[in-house]
Amino acid sequence: MAKRLDLQKNVLSSNDQAAAQLRREFATRRLLVLNLMSSPGSGKTTLLEHTARVLAGEFKMAVIEGDLQTDRDADRVRRAGLPAVQINTGGGCHLDVPMVRRALDGLALDGLDILFIENVGNLVCPAAFDLGEDAVVLLASVAEGDDKPGKYPTAFHRADVVLLTKTDFLPVTEFQVNLFLADVAKLKAELPVLPLSCRTGDGLDAWFAWLRRAVAAKKN
Amino acid sequence: MAKRLDLQKNVLSSNDQAAAQLRREFATRRLLVLNLMSSPGSGKTTLLEHTARVLAGEFKMAVIEGDLQTDRDADRVRRAGLPAVQINTGGGCHLDVPMVRRALDGLALDGLDILFIENVGNLVCPAAFDLGEDAVVLLASVAEGDDKPGKYPTAFHRADVVLLTKTDFLPVTEFQVNLFLADVAKLKAELPVLPLSCRTGDGLDAWFAWLRRAVAAKKN
Repeated sequence: MAKRLDLQKNVLSSNDQAAAQLRREFATRRLLVLNLMSSPGSGKTTLLEHTARVLAGEFKMAVIEGDLQTDRDADRVRRAGLPAVQINTGGGCHLDVPMVRRALDGLALDGLDILFIENVGNLVCPAAFDLGEDAVVLLASVAEGDDKPGKYPTAFHRADVVLLTKTDFLPVTEFQVNLFLADVAKLKAELPVLPLSCRTGDGLDAWFAWLRRAVAAKKN
Repeated sequence: MAKRLDLQKNVLSSNDQAAAQLRREFATRRLLVLNLMSSPGSGKTTLLEHTARVLAGEFKMAVIEGDLQTDRDADRVRRAGLPAVQINTGGGCHLDVPMVRRALDGLALDGLDILFIENVGNLVCPAAFDLGEDAVVLLASVAEGDDKPGKYPTAFHRADVVLLTKTDFLPVTEFQVNLFLADVAKLKAELPVLPLSCRTGDGLDAWFAWLRRAVAAKKN
């Protein structure tokens, strides 16, 4: 197993170097790049659909979609008006830099303000792979339960903002927001948590405000 | 990358051999072993709590709990009356046979009827690792959406039974049961799907009946 671990370290380190190069290229373009991570079904694609529709007149956006199989998510965000490239990893449990580079060939980057990279639905493996992003946006749905930060600390450590999604489920679950927030704060005291529901629209304005600030910071 | 893939194949093949040996040992004991897989927060631990309480007088059961961090799930099933051993994988995205073997040292196997192995919450990696189980029980929650079978085919291919959990969310989501069932059938025509809700109790009897049949088949 030692040999395997060493090799895995090398793969990581080679990915980190490639990610650093990609980050420099994104910086030259003043392009905000966000790496969206979550469990399967936490609402990443739904959030992108709403973001596409509300911010269409304000920013030029594009999406890279990561899934084991199917083009369903790329189709959904295209129907919401955004250019999208689908990556199928086969059995792969996360995206890496070479996959992102190949996807970039299919996108027009000139004048783009925001590139969303929707990672494979997985709360473990994506956290180990830098994609050259400016920020990791971690989604966790109320339906998953309030105990997730403690059980999946790596992903929460990597996050720059947490979106607590599907808050419309709060009345019909035992989810305790205070427990969730305390768990997050124990891992990373300064990590902001934005509760929201795409179904009701509650909290989406705070997400849009976060995006506007991030774009502005990147342009200056 | 070719070298890495070869090494990964070796790791898998070595795990498969160790799993075959473990399966023979379980068979000698006529012990039914179930490998529970799902996304984070699909309700694996909640299902075990309900199963523990209802079937306590009928079967002798024990649980191996897999998580990146925390002893929360083992604590929960112990409070429901079952002996449980917690495995913490650190950053590891799935259980493997050596982890299960170490956990077995902490359990009394004599006279045991059912051993539940609750895998790490992850719909990708656990599907690649045989743990010597008799059957893979795959949970997918209504809250995750009806598009999961097509997007995570490996896990559904490995499954022997699918539990569609949290059906009490059906009235407040756009989940279409027919789409989910059609997606499952496309992947594996004969795969049974049991819809259930631990909150309302709906459908739990079908799960208990499935368990009784599986124990009986193992004893004969």
